[in-house]
Order: sequence, then C-alpha cells, then structure tokens
Amino acid sequence: MSFEEMWRDLAPVGRFDATGGYRRYTLGAAELECRAWFRQEADKRGMPVRTDGNGNLWAWWGDPDAGDAVVTGSHLDSVPDGGAFDGPLGVVSAFAAVDRLRAEGFVPRRPIAVTAFAEEEGARFGIACLGSRLMAGAITVDKALSLTDAAGTTFGDAMGAAGFDPAAVGPDPALMAKVGVYIELHVEQGRGLIDMDRPVAVGEAIWPHGRWRLDFTGEANHAGTTRLEDRRDPMLTYANTVLAARKKARLGGAVATIGKLVCEPNGTNAVPSRVTAWLDARAPQESTLTDVVKEIHDATAERAQRDETGFHMVNESYTGETAFDPALRDRLSALLDGAPILGTGAGHDAGVLAVAGVPTAMLFVRNPTGVSHSPDEHAEIPDCLSGVSALVDVLRALA
Amino acid sequence: MSFEEMWRDLAPVGRFDATGGYRRYTLGAAELECRAWFRQEADKRGMPVRTDGNGNLWAWWGDPDAGDAVVTGSHLDSVPDGGAFDGPLGVVSAFAAVDRLRAEGFVPRRPIAVTAFAEEEGARFGIACLGSRLMAGAITVDKALSLTDAAGTTFGDAMGAAGFDPAAVGPDPALMAKVGVYIELHVEQGRGLIDMDRPVAVGEAIWPHGRWRLDFTGEANHAGTTRLEDRRDPMLTYANTVLAARKKARLGGAVATIGKLVCEPNGTNAVPSRVTAWLDARAPQESTLTDVVKEIHDATAERAQRDETGFHMVNESYTGETAFDPALRDRLSALLDGAPILGTGAGHDAGVLAVAGVPTAMLFVRNPTGVSHSPDEHAEIPDCLSGVSALVDVLRALA
Repeated sequence: MSFEEMWRDLAPVGRFDATGGYRRYTLGAAELECRAWFRQEADKRGMPVRTDGNGNLWAWWGDPDAGDAVVTGSHLDSVPDGGAFDGPLGVVSAFAAVDRLRAEGFVPRRPIAVTAFAEEEGARFGIACLGSRLMAGAITVDKALSLTDAAGTTFGDAMGAAGFDPAAVGPDPALMAKVGVYIELHVEQGRGLIDMDRPVAVGEAIWPHGRWRLDFTGEANHAGTTRLEDRRDPMLTYANTVLAARKKARLGGAVATIGKLVCEPNGTNAVPSRVTAWLDARAPQESTLTDVVKEIHDATAERAQRDETGFHMVNESYTGETAFDPALRDRLSALLDGAPILGTGAGHDAGVLAVAGVPTAMLFVRNPTGVSHSPDEHAEIPDCLSGVSALVDVLRALA
Repeated sequence: MSFEEMWRDLAPVGRFDATGGYRRYTLGAAELECRAWFRQEADKRGMPVRTDGNGNLWAWWGDPDAGDAVVTGSHLDSVPDGGAFDGPLGVVSAFAAVDRLRAEGFVPRRPIAVTAFAEEEGARFGIACLGSRLMAGAITVDKALSLTDAAGTTFGDAMGAAGFDPAAVGPDPALMAKVGVYIELHVEQGRGLIDMDRPVAVGEAIWPHGRWRLDFTGEANHAGTTRLEDRRDPMLTYANTVLAARKKARLGGAVATIGKLVCEPNGTNAVPSRVTAWLDARAPQESTLTDVVKEIHDATAERAQRDETGFHMVNESYTGETAFDPALRDRLSALLDGAPILGTGAGHDAGVLAVAGVPTAMLFVRNPTGVSHSPDEHAEIPDCLSGVSALVDVLRALA
C-alpha cells in the first residue's frame, strides 16, 4: 500500500458532502471506521495492534515490551468540518515510512510504534489531547470519564459503548516509560513554509495559549419601543470586545479569536439579556499573552461601564509555552538538510508528551493555503512524500 | 371569574422558572394550554368559540354571522422569555369587559367578539402577526405554510399536528368583512404614560419598521495558527455592524437592534466561516428609517471590504407607518377623559387590520418600568383594572 493508496482509502471516511469537511468525532461511526482502517494497515504489515486503556492505538514493529521505543503518529479524529490532513497525515506517513525502511532492508535496533491518539481535537468531549493527557496523567480519571458530548453521553459511556473498558481509563506510567522518543508529523497550520520555499520544517515550541469565557449581561427589552438611552444591551459591549481583541492582539504580537458565542434570548425583536462568548488567545511568549489578555479585559470593563452592562471574564484553560527537546530538534534539522525551525500556535499530543518529559519532536509539511480546521486545508502530494522521506530519515537515525 | 382570577389561572402556563420569563410558542404545549384556557373562559360565559382557518380564536357574544362586529382581543403567544402582559392582558381584559357589560345589563346592538390571534410575535415561525396577516391576505399561503421553526417543522405541519387543517390556511375575506371595528388593549412598551401620570392611552400610529437579514461570510481557520493578516473573519465585520447600527440610529433618531445571530461553525478554536444576524430597525418617519438602514448598510459594506469578508443584506419584512383610524382615535380619547395619544414602535395585529382597511384603535396600559419582551415587563393591577374600565366604556359606546 503506497502513501497514495492509503490516502485514497481514508479519504471518504467521515467526509460530509455538503461542506466538503470531515466530521470524525471520537468513537463515533466515522472515527471507528478510521480505527478499523488503522488495524487493517497494521495487519498488512504484520504489526500487532494494541489499544491502550485510554483508547489510543499502537501498532508495533518490534517488541512492545522492550522499551526505549521510537514512536511516531498523530490522530484520526477531526474538528467539525475539518480538513483531511490534520491528524491522518501523520498516521499515514508513519505507515508509509515503515514500508520505506523495510524496503531498504533497515533493521531497527529499537522497537518502532505507529500511534493514533484519541480525541486530539476535543471536538466531541471538549478537552483537546484527551487520550495523551490521560496516558500521561495530565487529567484526572474522574474528570475525563464525566466529560459529556453535545448529546449528553459521557466519555466513560462512549468508551463502554465502543467496546472499551471504562475502568481501564487513566494514567499509564508503564506505557509512558516505554516511549523513548515521540515524533509527530503534521500538516503545517500556517504559511511559514510557503515563504521559505521548503516542504518540511521541524517544530520549535507550542505557543502559550488559553481560553477565557466572557459573560456579558444586560436587560432584555423590546427592540421597537425601548429608547436607546434606556437600554442595557450586552451585544454592544460584546461587539466592542471583538474589535478590541483583534486590535490589542495586533498591537501586542499575539492572536486572539472569538469564534463561539451564545446570545439569549436570541430573538429578532428583543434586546439581548445575555451574551456569552469564548476568547481564544495565544502568543509566542507568556508575558505577551498575559499583557494582551489583560488589555482586552480592561477595554471591555471600561466599555461595559459606559453601556451599563455587566461583564465577567474567567479563564477556562491555560497552557504555558511547551518547547520540544532542543537537542533532538537541532539534530533533526541538521539531518533534514537544514530544515527550518518553526513555532506553532496549535496544541498537539506531542506537546502533552513533551510536558510529561518524553523527548519529543514535530515535523511540519507545507500547506499551500496556510488554512487548517477547514475543508480548504491542503498539502500537495509531492510535499506529503517529502514529509514521508523526512520521517524515514528521522526513524532510521533514531531507531 | 374576575380579572384577578383569570390572571392567576394563566400565570403559570409556559413560565420558565430559571428566568421567570414566558415561552409560549405558537402551537407548542404551553400555547395550546393557553388556547384551552381561552375556550374554558368563553364556555363559562356561554360564548361559542370558532377557530378560523388560520388558527385565530374567536369567542362570540351575539351572532357571529350578523356582521359589523365589535372585535377586541390580542394574542396569547410570547417571545422567548417574554413577560406576562404582552398579549394576554388584552385577552383577559376583553373577557373581563364582557363580564362588566353584562353585569350592568348592557345589551349590545352589534355582535361582540373576543379574539386571540396566532403567532403575533413570530417567535416560532419568524413572521410577526402571522395569523392576522393570513386572514387579511397580507402573506401568501405558500410562504406561510413553508415557514419553518428552529427544529425544521413547517407551519403547515405544526397546524396539522395541532389538529387544524393546513388546507384551510389563507385569506378569509368573509370573516374580514364581518369585523366592523377592532380594538386591541395592550401593555405599554415604553415609558410614555409614566411621564404623563395616566393609566391608559389611545394609540396614534405604529412606526414604520422592518427586519433585515445580514449575512457575513469569511473563511474558517485555526484560531491558533492563522496569522491575523491572513484571516477573513466575519465576526469582525459583524461586530463593527453592531456598533455602527447603534451609532447611526442614535444620530438619525431611529432605533436599531441586533438581538439574534447564528455563528458557524461556532467552535472555540476556529475563526468563524459565517455569521448571520438580524437587524430590527424602526423610526417615526419612513424617510428616517430608510436613511438609517442605508447608512448601516454602507458602513458595513465598507468594513467588509477592509476585512476581506463577504456581506449581503436582504430585507425580510417591512411595514410602513400605520396610522390608526383618526376619527375613532379622537372619539376614544374624548370618551376616556382626554386620554393621551401615543405612537409606538411595536407592531401589532391591530396594525395589520388597519392596513387592510378595518377601523382600528389601540389602548395602552401603563408599564411602570417601560420594559417589555422581558420577564421584567409589568403593569400594576389597579392600572390593569383601569384598562378594563376603559375597554368597557369603548365597547359600550361602539356596540
């Protein structure tokens, strides 16, 4: 099975025709089909598959119990209407790299594993990198099992329904100890490589990032009969925050996004009583992020006073800067003909494992649009094959 | 049944404890319970009830087929989390007025009908005054039947499910011809009567008003990895429109509100691909309204160009100024001890009937907060009873 054949097999799974985007939600029908594909590919290569207690898939070349394994992979789940590459590119490339190493007669001294981590996007249960976080002990079992999807199904029940044992969910220090190094290949989620005219980069660090909930409160009232001066309209305060977040991020060298909100009562002819919105903010340095978020908060608080609305802001999640192993990073860059080194604003399982102390590196494959989490996410096949070659070089050097 | 007893019976129906607001959506469980209440009150008074083909309720005192009827009432449906008074006050007051007239031995020379029009708020199917519009032929049958609620149920199917005949929906010129005059009593939706220290006013005119759908389109993208300069974020354009609408309305002497929006994909870590919002705008004069809406459009189009987003604006409904019958208005004001005459920014079934040529008048009952379309909407019981007395005087004079 060539890279292209594997890619073709996986392409229709979970694709939603109306948008052209993928809806592969953890333990849902489409994602289970992706898991079946993973098993088939591993079977064809004689690589025994183990599913760990947290639903992560591991296909082994060599002794799973020997330890000091060279692990490579990514994830198979997607955001709502996501692209084809975010996740699957790393898994397909890993199997293709195994084929290339075997074809050239390479005999690894260390075990090699191809992985697919569960719920990396957090699209179904709300916490990104859930599978790797659980394995690393970075989230409590109780919290994880009680996470619910939009239909009210808990992660624990979903695991049970898919034939996994909810009692096995939790930290797996024995498995963690066997991971000698983790390499995650991923489509680039920005335009860095376009400007550099290179197909592959090595990851430097994951930017500090966080999520804040913003509650704007006012007074519902009739849209036709309430004088402007008598209104307490939280939509005005919200709108000002959207513009302030963009401006403060631009001036401060960060990114800030409001992509989700809930308006109540959400009636055409009523001044809203409440707007709840979520701010996603990221920056290359923690100090920058802290400053920008504070400026957004202060600008909003001032405007709320003018609008006579209530405003409350609470941090829902925060991750400091995650640097990948610097020695490994430089070694890979040298190995790959001086591949450029790029930071990223996106979270990854590789980041979770790096925080947990695993030597970790990422490879990024050029994305000609820079777009991701969208049906327009793309990578050209020649660039994907350059990614496979890079992964072959890395695995050969490490294993 | 006194006014207070009727009010108490109706109070718990469709009340949502968490907000204290009412959710009485046309042909939904709570609104059907209000309809049952209407039938019981009519039965107690020996007033036969007819439901017309459009789901409007008519309780008759006198011969329904005699013509030249004096009709009074309002509606029983609510906006999401609306108040108790908007609609029901007019219906309860009508039954109470019938009781008072009978108690004083009044024998009407013209038939009197108490009505409750269907879907006045448009909260379920999106078009306000749907029942009166259909009866008056102010909306086509095809359009009305195909209106859908948030769950995708059409008005036609909802009528069928509630036991009405969708084939009977449509203009009803025979019934229209029997309405000699229509009087709608309504809680005031502003602060006019507070300043005048009077409990009841007579309506002058309904401001010209309209509703526009605004579609903002951009490109979904990753909130962490997409540089600000590479984004096409429709939320920015939307936010600018919210602030522009307020500013242009303030400067132009109009009111403009954006109280409803839908964001797609509405994910915390994704730049939105689309924001759809609804603009409600009203002004004392049509020329003012036209100017203000054009200014909002132009400011948005300019900003969309800067944001590289798409923007499209379409008018969904428009009603020019609706003056109530001037002779009737002046007669009622004189009858009610020189009651003040007030305009309103709110649409009403009385406006639809006035446009269709029915001599129409409105009575407004003082609202101590001026708030409406909100759980805080209120009228004191003594003011409500003053409203009933006014309606008694009016019905006695007309019937």
